[in-house]
Amino acid sequence: MSKPLLQMALDATDIDTALASVEHVANQLDIIEVGTILAFAHGVESVSILRKKYPDHIIVCDMKITDASAILSRLAMEAGANWVTVSAAAHIETIRAAKKVTDEFNGEVQIELYGHWTLEDAKAWVDMGITQAIYHRSRDAELAGVSWTEADLEKMHKLSELGIELSITGGIVPEDLHLFKHLSAKAFIAGRALAGENGCEIAETFHSEIGKHW
Amino acid sequence: MSKPLLQMALDATDIDTALASVEHVANQLDIIEVGTILAFAHGVESVSILRKKYPDHIIVCDMKITDASAILSRLAMEAGANWVTVSAAAHIETIRAAKKVTDEFNGEVQIELYGHWTLEDAKAWVDMGITQAIYHRSRDAELAGVSWTEADLEKMHKLSELGIELSITGGIVPEDLHLFKHLSAKAFIAGRALAGENGCEIAETFHSEIGKHW
Repeated sequence: MSKPLLQMALDATDIDTALASVEHVANQLDIIEVGTILAFAHGVESVSILRKKYPDHIIVCDMKITDASAILSRLAMEAGANWVTVSAAAHIETIRAAKKVTDEFNGEVQIELYGHWTLEDAKAWVDMGITQAIYHRSRDAELAGVSWTEADLEKMHKLSELGIELSITGGIVPEDLHLFKHLSAKAFIAGRALAGENGCEIAETFHSEIGKHW
Repeated sequence: MSKPLLQMALDATDIDTALASVEHVANQLDIIEVGTILAFAHGVESVSILRKKYPDHIIVCDMKITDASAILSRLAMEAGANWVTVSAAAHIETIRAAKKVTDEFNGEVQIELYGHWTLEDAKAWVDMGITQAIYHRSRDAELAGVSWTEADLEKMHKLSELGIELSITGGIVPEDLHLFKHLSAKAFIAGRALAGENGCEIAETFHSEIGKHW
């Protein structure tokens, strides 16, 4: 299993704040995410700006595409994204159309696991060549004030078994990483934690925990 | 039952094309939609530009919000939208947060019916005061080359019975409107049909069919 990557989600409502938030920690990141908020606030130009500034990072545009995937994926890819996110609620043909476009650019689709998705859905995604999904800490866990529930971990294991690599997010802290050591973890996604004053230190802790468990 | 409205979806990838496509037909529209494509392509500034130009139209920003609803709804509302769309796949608390923000602006949330939503979900939306949803012609119908299936119409009736007003979309043509005459139809949404040369004529036909059946 390859080492999980570190991803920072940029969710500012203006591009300058977003750029400022990533600058000090960019060297320690593998993946920069143009979050849905930034993508709507400043448009896909956000992706172009980040691509210009960070030519070597993986850039993901978190559009959570639900429909019109061919056009939206192309917008993201032409702006310089490597990956684009598509909602689990999208029709299977919508996902297929996104994959077709991202393939053209040697890009990838990540499925955003929202709504009542099923393992049958996940199998259909895998059957068409999807290899990545994004797992969010459940709201129930968040509302109950717990970090990750057994139910979350079980679902993640089932997805891993199907061959889906997971990017894991939702108030994730370095101390939680050991929970995922038996999973096929593609990346850990943090946002505000990395944007703060201690961002570099926190990024280092992420990397050292990753080194410890993978 | 009040008369259904006519909505045009603007899904160009640049704002000038979008503006040009709506100009000739704007007088015949009740609602202008900043489609997801336009919103990502040009950012929520698209909404501000349309609001300035069309101060009296209802403007909906089709973000299909799936998460981060408080910030995204606010972006849309502050830019001048009246309504914002939220995905049926969004967590109930995400929908509630969007509603709270739109309420502040006397705006409304429309639920975009994608994914495996259930009537239980719909009841939960109604219980929190949601009154609108957007119904898309099913992909199965589209792929089978039929306009609207019995299954589509049955689901729409059940939603109507719950008190949800439906905006109806998906290759809709004026000749189909009679199918929906017993539904609580809020609006009919067309895009390219209204943007074309015969846009005004088609809009007129929509209105005359609406007049005939409601």
